[in-house]
Amino acid sequence: MQTKTASLQMKILSADYILLMDGEKTVLRKGAVAFEKEILEIAHSSEQLTQKYPQASFEYLGDNSVLMPALINAHTHLEFSSNKTTLTYGNFIEWLTSVMENREKLSSGNIESVIEKILKEMLRYGTATIGAISSFGKDLTPCVSTPQKIVYFNELLGSREEFLNESEADFDRRLERTMRFKSDSFIPAVSVHSAYSTHPKLVNKAVSIAKKYDMPIAVHFMESKGERGWLDKSNGEFKAFFKKFFGIEKSLTTTAEFLEKFEGARAIFVHCLYAKEEELEKMKYQNAHIVHCPISNRLLSSRIFDIEKAKNLNMDFITATDGLSSNFCLNLFNELRCTLFMHYDLSLKVLPYDLLESVTKNPAIALGLPVGQIIQGYSADLISFNLPDTLENDEALALQIILHTNKVERIYINGVEY
Amino acid sequence: MQTKTASLQMKILSADYILLMDGEKTVLRKGAVAFEKEILEIAHSSEQLTQKYPQASFEYLGDNSVLMPALINAHTHLEFSSNKTTLTYGNFIEWLTSVMENREKLSSGNIESVIEKILKEMLRYGTATIGAISSFGKDLTPCVSTPQKIVYFNELLGSREEFLNESEADFDRRLERTMRFKSDSFIPAVSVHSAYSTHPKLVNKAVSIAKKYDMPIAVHFMESKGERGWLDKSNGEFKAFFKKFFGIEKSLTTTAEFLEKFEGARAIFVHCLYAKEEELEKMKYQNAHIVHCPISNRLLSSRIFDIEKAKNLNMDFITATDGLSSNFCLNLFNELRCTLFMHYDLSLKVLPYDLLESVTKNPAIALGLPVGQIIQGYSADLISFNLPDTLENDEALALQIILHTNKVERIYINGVEY
Repeated sequence: MQTKTASLQMKILSADYILLMDGEKTVLRKGAVAFEKEILEIAHSSEQLTQKYPQASFEYLGDNSVLMPALINAHTHLEFSSNKTTLTYGNFIEWLTSVMENREKLSSGNIESVIEKILKEMLRYGTATIGAISSFGKDLTPCVSTPQKIVYFNELLGSREEFLNESEADFDRRLERTMRFKSDSFIPAVSVHSAYSTHPKLVNKAVSIAKKYDMPIAVHFMESKGERGWLDKSNGEFKAFFKKFFGIEKSLTTTAEFLEKFEGARAIFVHCLYAKEEELEKMKYQNAHIVHCPISNRLLSSRIFDIEKAKNLNMDFITATDGLSSNFCLNLFNELRCTLFMHYDLSLKVLPYDLLESVTKNPAIALGLPVGQIIQGYSADLISFNLPDTLENDEALALQIILHTNKVERIYINGVEY
Repeated sequence: MQTKTASLQMKILSADYILLMDGEKTVLRKGAVAFEKEILEIAHSSEQLTQKYPQASFEYLGDNSVLMPALINAHTHLEFSSNKTTLTYGNFIEWLTSVMENREKLSSGNIESVIEKILKEMLRYGTATIGAISSFGKDLTPCVSTPQKIVYFNELLGSREEFLNESEADFDRRLERTMRFKSDSFIPAVSVHSAYSTHPKLVNKAVSIAKKYDMPIAVHFMESKGERGWLDKSNGEFKAFFKKFFGIEKSLTTTAEFLEKFEGARAIFVHCLYAKEEELEKMKYQNAHIVHCPISNRLLSSRIFDIEKAKNLNMDFITATDGLSSNFCLNLFNELRCTLFMHYDLSLKVLPYDLLESVTKNPAIALGLPVGQIIQGYSADLISFNLPDTLENDEALALQIILHTNKVERIYINGVEY
């Protein structure tokens, strides 16, 4: 393991299976990849590369080794990493209430060191890029200093008119602070918590900032039945909740008004469990992206995103872990495995590769970063690990990776091994 | 860790949460259990027991400790433990064909040492009792010498009339050999592979032996769509398969005839994915038990057992791993976790406890052993492990156990720690 400042040496790695994640299911058997900070060249045999780059170090990764793009976890809430058994699962409103009641407890103690530890774990799980939703800015220091690339989504939250100025001022402070750390590895961005919890004026502000700085903008959307009922009819499970906590009797927006605001922005809609067909069509028209967080969705909303519906609309999807407030670990291989079982009726000839794309190529495009595929000129963000046995058909590779992998053997970010 | 021959000392264990698995969701907080080979007494406080049994060693298992009955994996095929990435998943017939084609490869090498290793792993996963389906008898030595209790199901398989005598003679030899090892920890039993693969005459023989010796009898039933079509109409996916491999054109039995044969036996029907309502009712009437193997079912049949249907018929269900021919590990906690996600629409207030029962109380009843519950006089087959944090409500205990547990801290079988 090297430090972030280690000097870069050109490397050539050869593996039994190199999965390019190029959308073509390409597998190079005993192929090789040459890289420094970026990927220099990909070849069907290592000899080709060792002759061309004699100064490079060469290594074969061993029996049943897999080399593929490092993973991208596009949606997580690091500030809630202290939760293990505290929050109430099984119903979204009960969960949200338990979050509000335990916010103090969960953010007490040294939250920064908890987040550092989690980020290190995520590295071992093969995650090189993280979309971090920051509600309070308490995750800034660990996010700036971690070797992973962080797209840091400053969140705007607040539905009460009388506190708008305060919410805005707090957001401005947080955004300004993050802009100071902007780099290729730390990318400030914007998040709207949700249609039900963020005042339309704040949504306008968030979208205009995202457009001004060409930032991605993440938003939770239709995560629960309660949200559907509240936005459609100011009714349902959210009614008593809003009355109790905020004294609000009516939704501040309709779904159509809300979605309209994201026109022209690089929007990422998270969850979409209760999104209607026409809403997904609207997202497609806006070139927006969809993130689903299956474990979180099962624990809070007892529903799973309709992958088939998205695929019929020719939309790619992204899989992410959400935070430890609604997950038991932030291991994307574990997340994909659970997703594979949740979608038990979808074909094992199609779903596994789609799932690997949903944590590499697709989130890279949504976040606007040159990662997630092994392509010449892209960042050398790579992982390797070994399967327990050989494979006869390349077709089974994605499935066997998802079934058997937890931690990675190696992770390279910008060509440096961590 | 002690050996099987270690002398038994009376012990008292106290844990933060003692889950009795008594069907009442009883949790004793900071309670205690006194045991030797069998469970002597259960109390709400350890003082009660330490005073009554001053000769016993006493131990408190620490922060957030859980003490519960050891787990029971009622259905597994140990002889196929060598498979990791060899067999074809995604379609039952393709899988079955790959099993037939790779049988040699998978059973070559030192299969006994592979099975020994797997049994040791299962011990660390908290499994103290195993229902082992034995096709060839190659698992006998490790099953006899392992500390776990083994219900050893000698399997009868063979559909061709001309080989009946041979199948029978082989079965007789295997059964006779296992009977020599019969003990409280090694219980010979009988298995019929399935309605489509076991000739009716062999089924009759198996049932009569099971009744004669009062043995449980396990049978795969309605695991695939192909099986449904073949038994109902001698048609569908199995047609070409039977013609190719066995020269058989017509199913040798109907479902009703097949089920009827198990009248009066202690039957355990495994899978039942495509079982009809009236077939489940017939099983209920026969006091039969149902085992489902969710991971295996997802990988081979892309379907999940309808738990609600069984519950509406007031039938308990059992969860098991099946073998490594259709699973990536034999960890029941992992199996329950995947099951929890597969049944994503079932209530988290009900399903988790049902799932824990499905690997403790329910399989113990099906296998006819005094284990699976913490009850005075039952075997002291216990496990303990620690949750990552405290719980406010006992109601969430089963869910948090399933989310956070993989290996156990301690496992006791007949009061001896392994």
